[in-house]
Amino acid sequence: MQIIEGGVTSPAGFKAASTAAGIKYQGRTDMAMVYSEVPCDCAGTFTSNIVKAACVMWDKEIVESGRKMQAVVVNSGIANACTGQEGYDACRKTAEAVNEALGVSADTVAVASTGVIGMQLPVEKLAAGVKAMAPELADSKEAGTAASKAIMTTDTINKEIAVTFEAGGKTVTLGGMSKGSGMIHPNMCTMLGFLTTDLSIDKKLMQEALSAVITDTFNMITVDGDTSTNDTLLLMANGLAENKTITEKDADYDAFYEALNYVCEYLAKRMAGDGEGATKLFECKVVNAKTKEDARILSKAVVGSNLSKAAIFGCDANFGRFLCAMGYSGSKFDQNDVELFFVSKAGKLQVFDKGVPLSFDEDLAKKIMEEKEVTVYVDMHEGDAQATAWGCDLTYDYVKINADYRS
Amino acid sequence: MQIIEGGVTSPAGFKAASTAAGIKYQGRTDMAMVYSEVPCDCAGTFTSNIVKAACVMWDKEIVESGRKMQAVVVNSGIANACTGQEGYDACRKTAEAVNEALGVSADTVAVASTGVIGMQLPVEKLAAGVKAMAPELADSKEAGTAASKAIMTTDTINKEIAVTFEAGGKTVTLGGMSKGSGMIHPNMCTMLGFLTTDLSIDKKLMQEALSAVITDTFNMITVDGDTSTNDTLLLMANGLAENKTITEKDADYDAFYEALNYVCEYLAKRMAGDGEGATKLFECKVVNAKTKEDARILSKAVVGSNLSKAAIFGCDANFGRFLCAMGYSGSKFDQNDVELFFVSKAGKLQVFDKGVPLSFDEDLAKKIMEEKEVTVYVDMHEGDAQATAWGCDLTYDYVKINADYRS
Repeated sequence: MQIIEGGVTSPAGFKAASTAAGIKYQGRTDMAMVYSEVPCDCAGTFTSNIVKAACVMWDKEIVESGRKMQAVVVNSGIANACTGQEGYDACRKTAEAVNEALGVSADTVAVASTGVIGMQLPVEKLAAGVKAMAPELADSKEAGTAASKAIMTTDTINKEIAVTFEAGGKTVTLGGMSKGSGMIHPNMCTMLGFLTTDLSIDKKLMQEALSAVITDTFNMITVDGDTSTNDTLLLMANGLAENKTITEKDADYDAFYEALNYVCEYLAKRMAGDGEGATKLFECKVVNAKTKEDARILSKAVVGSNLSKAAIFGCDANFGRFLCAMGYSGSKFDQNDVELFFVSKAGKLQVFDKGVPLSFDEDLAKKIMEEKEVTVYVDMHEGDAQATAWGCDLTYDYVKINADYRS
Repeated sequence: MQIIEGGVTSPAGFKAASTAAGIKYQGRTDMAMVYSEVPCDCAGTFTSNIVKAACVMWDKEIVESGRKMQAVVVNSGIANACTGQEGYDACRKTAEAVNEALGVSADTVAVASTGVIGMQLPVEKLAAGVKAMAPELADSKEAGTAASKAIMTTDTINKEIAVTFEAGGKTVTLGGMSKGSGMIHPNMCTMLGFLTTDLSIDKKLMQEALSAVITDTFNMITVDGDTSTNDTLLLMANGLAENKTITEKDADYDAFYEALNYVCEYLAKRMAGDGEGATKLFECKVVNAKTKEDARILSKAVVGSNLSKAAIFGCDANFGRFLCAMGYSGSKFDQNDVELFFVSKAGKLQVFDKGVPLSFDEDLAKKIMEEKEVTVYVDMHEGDAQATAWGCDLTYDYVKINADYRS
């Protein structure tokens, strides 16, 4: 597998465009479209929130019915959640605008939204946006990057990546982009993520791979514990790499799986480190847990705790908070088995040893925690399972951003 | 039932004292003792966190063994959690100091701690504190108030209350104090709460009443979703009111239950409204839910959401966040049944009506949300169960306090 410069437009046959449609804010791009020259097989995972956005219901229907997907239209102004029938109609009208502009069947057009909940979409602005983007669709790297910027809300950096791998003697490309920032606690999926590939693969196998990969990537990040109404991850495969279609879990499947996992982990970590108001990427690695599920639960509890996150912001090696979070996580363990370390580029420091707090070098602890990426490393000594979760620190800016987000 | 001025020293036979023992901080009282002239039957509930503080294990043993309890010693500097055998020995030594100073059996002395996790207690300072407090024990209102202040950490107001009720022709008094502020998401109990009464009641009935009452009071509050390692609620009953011992669920039991519920709800709400950095009490009342459990889950999810809490801080009627939190709570419902209102002294305003967002008066919304106590009122239209949860807003000061708590 090789990492290349690029994003959603890197695989053969994929184009992108973006525009400032004035959905909610003026003066910044807030709509993006990703389009494939030929219809794609698709896979998707969606929020587990009971209150699902209209666009989530629209996209689920495409993925679950087994229909092809040829375009995705995204807006980053209004979430189109809690909007009833009118919200669902807005999805249909957006897809119909793509049909009019590009001639692709409306029922192969996915839509995705992020932004304020409980506000209706201005359908005429969306339709005008689609019309403006259609003639601008391009397969350049720049078009992909511009799309990855147009889907941002409070994100401070865009998130995109592309990799290549070999399958059946052909070079296959996989590209992706995502946005995160707030209301990030994905459960079955991430906020918004779009993956494109020119791979040819059996649709069921593709969905199986996607569902497996998110368990260790997007589902292992949290910014604030709030699982969004809009979480959507879509993977479109148009087959233009002309590899022999993958139909079983052979070496080609493994190469695809590895690439998919890499791309999803990359995007997930970028989302965690760019959480609303964040100054740091906060990682928790739990090793030697009883089961994989225990390792996941424990590591997610640590990066999800407000008190842990505030300690990370303050560069305070207040390790009791991390143990406390593990204790209420729901996983069962004996604190007398646990070792806990702080790790970063600046060094590794043990602070807790099987039930006993260690006296440690506070200066070194501070130095370790002042790095941009800080890891809490926990050895459970109860088995051989491991998992890693990613989050960010809790800062004044998180409060500032969210005390006045809607207006 | 009648509310009277007072606290833990109000019931007959109870005394309190406090002192500045210099456990972790200098220049403020940080130890308290509550003492009964005669041994008490006791009930207790404790944290569900797997990582239990040494003092929780010590107190649980007293309550579960059915032994009498005659004194409680509290310190508010160091939590004595994650401290291994040395931490448990510190509990025993504290109890032994009470035995030396007052002659009460060490195995009837409860201990409770709050403060930094993962640091050993200075046992000699605790013993000196006990020795200093013993001769100062007094049954005055002032002594009870001073004790309620000595157990505070980042609390800004002390929490105490006393009520009287009639049982078997006698006037019985029930007093209580508690501390909260941070790491508040009680599960089976609250941070630290101490209740005293001169009632005579069967021990099992008393425990049953306490366990039932906390479900709708202390377990319905959250400050930050972090369930502490130290949550402890103790109820001591010395029988000095000389009522005929309550042995069944008769009218006397009901009077006691009502008083207990009132006292616990009062202390719980005071803790929620005085959460770390809080400027407001944030209440969520869910009515007409399918089951009581659904109502509890939904209301707790709303007051527990960081995004909801930030919106409350910003006086922003961003109701989508409240619906989003209900959606990921784990309770199943149909958003097309839901009505949502904002309520405070300044008025009542509906913002969401069965799947449809309403356009509403933003000025009135702001006015309602600027009050010190704000309620999100949710009508599920799916049954007849209801529950209320209490929390607080998420503020800059919460981050400030917790980014630099340990040092």
